[in-house]
Amino acid sequence: MLAANPEDQMTPTITAFEQSPDRGRGLARDMHVRWALEEVGQPYDVRLLSFSAMKEPAHRAIHPFGQIPTYEDGELALFESGAIVFHIAERHAGLLPKNANARARAIAWMFAALSTMEPPIVDRSIAVVFERDRPWHEERLPIVEDRIRGRLKDLSVRLGDSEWLDGEFSAGDLLMVEVLRRLSGSGIVDGYPNLAAYVARGEARPAFRRAFAAQLAVFNAASNN
Amino acid sequence: MLAANPEDQMTPTITAFEQSPDRGRGLARDMHVRWALEEVGQPYDVRLLSFSAMKEPAHRAIHPFGQIPTYEDGELALFESGAIVFHIAERHAGLLPKNANARARAIAWMFAALSTMEPPIVDRSIAVVFERDRPWHEERLPIVEDRIRGRLKDLSVRLGDSEWLDGEFSAGDLLMVEVLRRLSGSGIVDGYPNLAAYVARGEARPAFRRAFAAQLAVFNAASNN
Repeated sequence: MLAANPEDQMTPTITAFEQSPDRGRGLARDMHVRWALEEVGQPYDVRLLSFSAMKEPAHRAIHPFGQIPTYEDGELALFESGAIVFHIAERHAGLLPKNANARARAIAWMFAALSTMEPPIVDRSIAVVFERDRPWHEERLPIVEDRIRGRLKDLSVRLGDSEWLDGEFSAGDLLMVEVLRRLSGSGIVDGYPNLAAYVARGEARPAFRRAFAAQLAVFNAASNN
Repeated sequence: MLAANPEDQMTPTITAFEQSPDRGRGLARDMHVRWALEEVGQPYDVRLLSFSAMKEPAHRAIHPFGQIPTYEDGELALFESGAIVFHIAERHAGLLPKNANARARAIAWMFAALSTMEPPIVDRSIAVVFERDRPWHEERLPIVEDRIRGRLKDLSVRLGDSEWLDGEFSAGDLLMVEVLRRLSGSGIVDGYPNLAAYVARGEARPAFRRAFAAQLAVFNAASNN
């Protein structure tokens, strides 16, 4: 029997959907966190939540907006996938450059992914899921998609033929690939071949594949019940 | 004559609108950065940009999406207001707690402001500015505002009767107040008296008032030309 490893007590716990509405496609935000943890080689536990449990006071004490994912490690409880990825990136090597200026730029890409690129993409998801039966849906959707294309064009120009957004793969790339993956199935990213290849490079990383398999296993287990 | 101060060479330069579309109400995102710089007592220079200059290659080299604000300090050039505020908060005392867990939670509120709270608020701005003449505007606006109220309700419950979101004023409060200020004039925040008081507390801070006066001076100068 091995001696107790003090690090065993430090395994963080994240939360995820008990039954993901994306049917195992890995589009829920626990993927951001799973992928980050896999990149740095940090094992983790998962607590699955039903939609009703997410809105209960016990979960809202950790996540004020009643969502997933959360991250608990000892006395620390965090919400917001971007903040959780950043916390992981600060405490482990592999997701942020050591050079101070390069690190600041990688953090800028984290914010760019979540606050410049993602909002019109989420707006499209809302339109497709919740406004599909509204009389304006057909006329409004192309307007939303044009907003997305404006951002994608700028991102495509900046990426050019680089492998990642600014030097080595970083937490900025992780979040950007995750945000662009939300468009999967829409065909929109395919209009920007360098971005489509960028997303594919992200998805080909062993850490991504392990994270994807882990969330898919949750979906498959729920489906078999 | 005073001896040259080496810190003089370190005055950062930010960019802002030459003519802000908000007519001096301080709703553009350079306010996030001005306020943060004022909180930590860091002087700064401002380079004003026209709407066409923002889209030129010279500016896009710094900001891939052709927006303001940017932040330049020596060899470092940053974009994304959230990332710039974080960079300032990391390098100066006053915007992030020293305790590691409290610091991580303040960063979570930064991301919450920009990626959970702001998107429906920006969606409302887009609806009001760009979709006002669309046939669906009148029917869709209440739907967007209900989404905003859902977030505000959760935030109001979490804030309770606290002064700030998690202990001392932090960069998380700075960004949250800024995001809520985007609703000024809509009356929506007034439905949550503790949030309205929270915004007022932010706006009453001397650093906020200096930042606000600085952006207003730019608007007034442009108007007098």
